[in-house]
Amino acid sequence: MSKENKQTSVSELGEFGLIERLTKDIKIKNASTIKGVGDDAAVMNYKDKQVVVSTDLLTEGVHFNLMYAPLKHLGYKAVVVNLSDIYAMNAKPTQITVSIAISSKFSVEALDELYAGIHLACETYNVDLVGGDTTSSLTGLTISITALGEVEKDKVVQRSGAKVSDLLCVSGDLGGAYMGLQLLERENEVFKVDNNMQPKLEGYDYILERQLKPEARMDIVAIFEKLGIVPTSMIDISDGLSSEIMHLCKNSALGCSLFEDKVPMDNQTKQMAEEFSINPIVAALNGGEDYELLFTISLDDYEKMKNDPDFTIIGHMTEAAEGVNLVTAAGSSIPLEAQGWNHAK
Amino acid sequence: MSKENKQTSVSELGEFGLIERLTKDIKIKNASTIKGVGDDAAVMNYKDKQVVVSTDLLTEGVHFNLMYAPLKHLGYKAVVVNLSDIYAMNAKPTQITVSIAISSKFSVEALDELYAGIHLACETYNVDLVGGDTTSSLTGLTISITALGEVEKDKVVQRSGAKVSDLLCVSGDLGGAYMGLQLLERENEVFKVDNNMQPKLEGYDYILERQLKPEARMDIVAIFEKLGIVPTSMIDISDGLSSEIMHLCKNSALGCSLFEDKVPMDNQTKQMAEEFSINPIVAALNGGEDYELLFTISLDDYEKMKNDPDFTIIGHMTEAAEGVNLVTAAGSSIPLEAQGWNHAK
Repeated sequence: MSKENKQTSVSELGEFGLIERLTKDIKIKNASTIKGVGDDAAVMNYKDKQVVVSTDLLTEGVHFNLMYAPLKHLGYKAVVVNLSDIYAMNAKPTQITVSIAISSKFSVEALDELYAGIHLACETYNVDLVGGDTTSSLTGLTISITALGEVEKDKVVQRSGAKVSDLLCVSGDLGGAYMGLQLLERENEVFKVDNNMQPKLEGYDYILERQLKPEARMDIVAIFEKLGIVPTSMIDISDGLSSEIMHLCKNSALGCSLFEDKVPMDNQTKQMAEEFSINPIVAALNGGEDYELLFTISLDDYEKMKNDPDFTIIGHMTEAAEGVNLVTAAGSSIPLEAQGWNHAK
Repeated sequence: MSKENKQTSVSELGEFGLIERLTKDIKIKNASTIKGVGDDAAVMNYKDKQVVVSTDLLTEGVHFNLMYAPLKHLGYKAVVVNLSDIYAMNAKPTQITVSIAISSKFSVEALDELYAGIHLACETYNVDLVGGDTTSSLTGLTISITALGEVEKDKVVQRSGAKVSDLLCVSGDLGGAYMGLQLLERENEVFKVDNNMQPKLEGYDYILERQLKPEARMDIVAIFEKLGIVPTSMIDISDGLSSEIMHLCKNSALGCSLFEDKVPMDNQTKQMAEEFSINPIVAALNGGEDYELLFTISLDDYEKMKNDPDFTIIGHMTEAAEGVNLVTAAGSSIPLEAQGWNHAK
């Protein structure tokens, strides 16, 4: 917010003036969008496609800290988080609505920054901003985004379709967003004690970007299509690998063996974990916010995907009675608990 | 919140336990809902219908005051406000998502009350609750609801379709919700000064209900269908008649003559306005929250609707050059200003 010289109060524009300013440059990109911003509701026509809908609510001080999250990145991330849920259904996001509640500390220029990030995400992911609500709050910033997507009827992937012996796979690498957050929080604490201290962030671009400007795995859904694979179940990793595996197992009524040494992690993640004396696998299991896709595929599809560098096979599904287990590098089997493995250790 | 003896903290249940408790009794009512709560996204299939989407964000202290708004009514109203936007497109609401952010002051039992109202509204309006987000806030309660609806392709009514000489009509009566709010705020001020004072609310049930538990005009959309009328333009009255008329005129590039003595108002509204020394027409024009439908119909449809007691003709559309005018009971013509007529007088 400090970059701008002129700070215009929202009351100078009024609600309708503000909406006009924040949405005037929108160009509709999807054929399914009939009418976007500017009426009581947006109008869409999905023809014979199925429609998926997901929503998230982010509040200042809980989901983000404006001390170190630039507003443009925040806007981008708020959209990405929602799109990630749409991709997790094997669908393509097509529309979003964005509602914000703002206290009087936010200027029009600050909201321009937030919406610059929102518009950039729409551009990157080919999504139309079709509606929303702009209102006041007594304190802080709240962002609520709903994403809609479309998918052919027989391609929808839910959490419940995994079968025994299906391969458990993940895109990208894990734990980076969590270690990026630890770094940002540490440097923020140092800054609060001494305002002249410059944060030491060099060499950690990757994990910082994982935290501040994550991407949703649009490419993975496209690769599935190209390879002719429909995963048997899928979920996005927002709460940490451990919690998401528990969801897949519970919804599919199965157990699972997860191999510790197969879990993909970037070197920066491992280095930062070492600095914080954290076992990196804990960052991957419980950290969250990686926005990678966790999915299961039938063994029959193994040949199709085995040479693709975008996926890592990290385990396989078992009968429910066998439980949900982490097989450590040393070969011992530990029951996995959602958000609990860390503390149980 | 005070009715319940046992107060369970949300942390005792955890996020997933809370979601399970708040959504366990949902029974899907609409054929277009394929998969509701419980995955990364809900799945719908609208076949050849068009889909309309609208969203609202309500924050404590701005949109509602828990000193006098019971949580069950608040949940009901939060849904109704969104459905009203769907009806304003001449569509039928079919699904909602509900996201809430809560501070630690809210117990599980308080959220049970809020969701009792949400579920009741879903029951009343035949809508499926298909998703949402439940999260923390540092202060107060925030509710974000997105409503989806369906409508046949040629039946969508936007704000932009009015023509010169179309009749301007409204459902129900106006100004009641605003006068109900004035009454509640007055009694709340009295209560704050003397906790032993009982609020004087007798004889004002109607305007209190208009404020605390409004209904969306589901019946009007059904009547249009029965009478074979498709309005040329429509909007719901959330911000006050004046502001909504300005929207219809601006979007349709027209002017309008509104007749003061035609604007329907209930006797309780008029009485309370008199107590507050407010001209009742001001409550109707600028009060808002009536959630009635304001629409235009072609003169050709006049015969079809002239005997229907659910509508009142309050004016007609004119060329843009004639402006947007209120014709007073005395016969003089005053330019109408959105949310400004009150002050300009």
